[in-house]
Amino acid sequence: MSTASHSRAIPAIGIDFGGTTIKSGLVINGQIARRGTIIDTQQYSGPSAILDALVAVIEDLRKGEPDVAAIGIGLPGLVDSVNGIVHELTNVPGWSDVALRTLLNERTGLHVIIENDANAMAYGEWKYGAAKNGRHVICITLGTGVGGALILDGRLYRGAQLGAGEIGHMSIDLRGRPGPYGNDGGLEEYVGNHQIAERAQERYKGAGDERTITQCAPAELAAKALAGDAIAKQLWEDVGTEVGAALASVVWILNPDTIVIGGGVAKAGDLIFDPIRRAICGRTQKVIHEQLRVVPAALGNDAGIIGNAVLALESEQQARATRL
Amino acid sequence: MSTASHSRAIPAIGIDFGGTTIKSGLVINGQIARRGTIIDTQQYSGPSAILDALVAVIEDLRKGEPDVAAIGIGLPGLVDSVNGIVHELTNVPGWSDVALRTLLNERTGLHVIIENDANAMAYGEWKYGAAKNGRHVICITLGTGVGGALILDGRLYRGAQLGAGEIGHMSIDLRGRPGPYGNDGGLEEYVGNHQIAERAQERYKGAGDERTITQCAPAELAAKALAGDAIAKQLWEDVGTEVGAALASVVWILNPDTIVIGGGVAKAGDLIFDPIRRAICGRTQKVIHEQLRVVPAALGNDAGIIGNAVLALESEQQARATRL
Repeated sequence: MSTASHSRAIPAIGIDFGGTTIKSGLVINGQIARRGTIIDTQQYSGPSAILDALVAVIEDLRKGEPDVAAIGIGLPGLVDSVNGIVHELTNVPGWSDVALRTLLNERTGLHVIIENDANAMAYGEWKYGAAKNGRHVICITLGTGVGGALILDGRLYRGAQLGAGEIGHMSIDLRGRPGPYGNDGGLEEYVGNHQIAERAQERYKGAGDERTITQCAPAELAAKALAGDAIAKQLWEDVGTEVGAALASVVWILNPDTIVIGGGVAKAGDLIFDPIRRAICGRTQKVIHEQLRVVPAALGNDAGIIGNAVLALESEQQARATRL
Repeated sequence: MSTASHSRAIPAIGIDFGGTTIKSGLVINGQIARRGTIIDTQQYSGPSAILDALVAVIEDLRKGEPDVAAIGIGLPGLVDSVNGIVHELTNVPGWSDVALRTLLNERTGLHVIIENDANAMAYGEWKYGAAKNGRHVICITLGTGVGGALILDGRLYRGAQLGAGEIGHMSIDLRGRPGPYGNDGGLEEYVGNHQIAERAQERYKGAGDERTITQCAPAELAAKALAGDAIAKQLWEDVGTEVGAALASVVWILNPDTIVIGGGVAKAGDLIFDPIRRAICGRTQKVIHEQLRVVPAALGNDAGIIGNAVLALESEQQARATRL
């Protein structure tokens, strides 16, 4: 057995710290061997109470597992993975410059890493999911927001301020819909969850058909389109074309071998994947796109747990190698 | 003296194979110590005649320099730097799948590398020019075409089919001006040399002022704008905003620390740099752009010669280390 495959059998804990819940698991060989109790962040008053709950879940996952080597936590927001500091969290108040890595290391005695959630999910998909064997991988998550992460030349790419991968904020029309950072025409302003629903509501209204915003949610629109509704079908065509046009620009810049698309909106399946693939192929050179894989994410909600555990394990092994 | 600084004093030959001329030089410590005779590609009938001329220039540059270790050649077109094959050249007929690396190695006995011209220029600017000390560098050349190259995590990034960096083909408006690969709204369709001239001619005509296309060339337009011509000033403002909007999207994706802008059109100076910087800052987060350098290329026409020589030298040293 090679060192590499042996080392992968070492258990690590992966934690997916979301806007409303914290999911966790004991990961062995890229599989979730046991899941931790889900933490509802809204039931806790601040970082220190959440930290206590986290430590309890970790201790529970470690029971009967003396070999657990590391903990990886992915968080939504401004995360300094180099220094282990959470600057701020999206939708979770009170997390202002929390030295989470040191705090958790002191409480558990384990090697700890923290990471941006999109990066961790991409890492999981790359090591054990849809992007396995890729070397230049673009991951994009279509949900309330449009997130992204990059594996370039076989390494997670973070950029100068660890802010790379924000495909949702790139512009598809420099004079288009106003973006939150002056980034007019930002992709998210067209294909975010709420934006899709609003556009659908508007189009139905234009056709004399008043619908609630809930009736226009992406899952509803997908069902409608599959049932033959022309407005819903056209909307998915437009949304897919917009996502595909943005990805075509990313292909011109980065020439990836794999594009992984996940998130709730991607559940529309072929309704969105067909126009995405058509737009990418229709807007790039054949020599570049003919070997490009455009695939749905494979690990679903587990990508974060798995990716964080694998990142933590690799970081721990690197730290140990440096010490030897 | 450290090995690294010592090794840099080893001379290498850099060759900038352009659409009409081939420029070369003996490079020592990132400086051109001696220049080779310029070859006019149009005076030669095909690859083998040009190869003879190249070998003569190389032998001339080596005279009295027994330590020359390597040759680097940058070419415009489809270049397979991994296998050393020129698939096709822009504006130079007859170069179809030429194994240039092997051919030149056999004729000179030296270590040879071939590279895409934009990558070589970016490498020169990174090692000895405007992007020195950068770690995540975007290089863009504004000329007849709009070229680009990327240094990411301190390495030249080429992508899956060695086609990365094509910023000129990314779209700034998915329903904009038709692009050559279906890439509607491609940046080059707005800010390429000819496109700028055509847009200026059109605007002058709209104001009842008929001008030749030569009178509307970027250099003329820069002079006009500096003299206070309102149409020329507005055109530079628009061109800079378009380049800046494209670069802002690249900043969202790659979070670079340095952007280097070169090429003939960049000679318009502040006329184009001011709106470029304004667009980048106005369309990205402060935490990301406040430490970003947006600078003009520093090495001018020498970037290719220097970059090719440095790439060749580093490749030769790596090959030697592998053999030891």
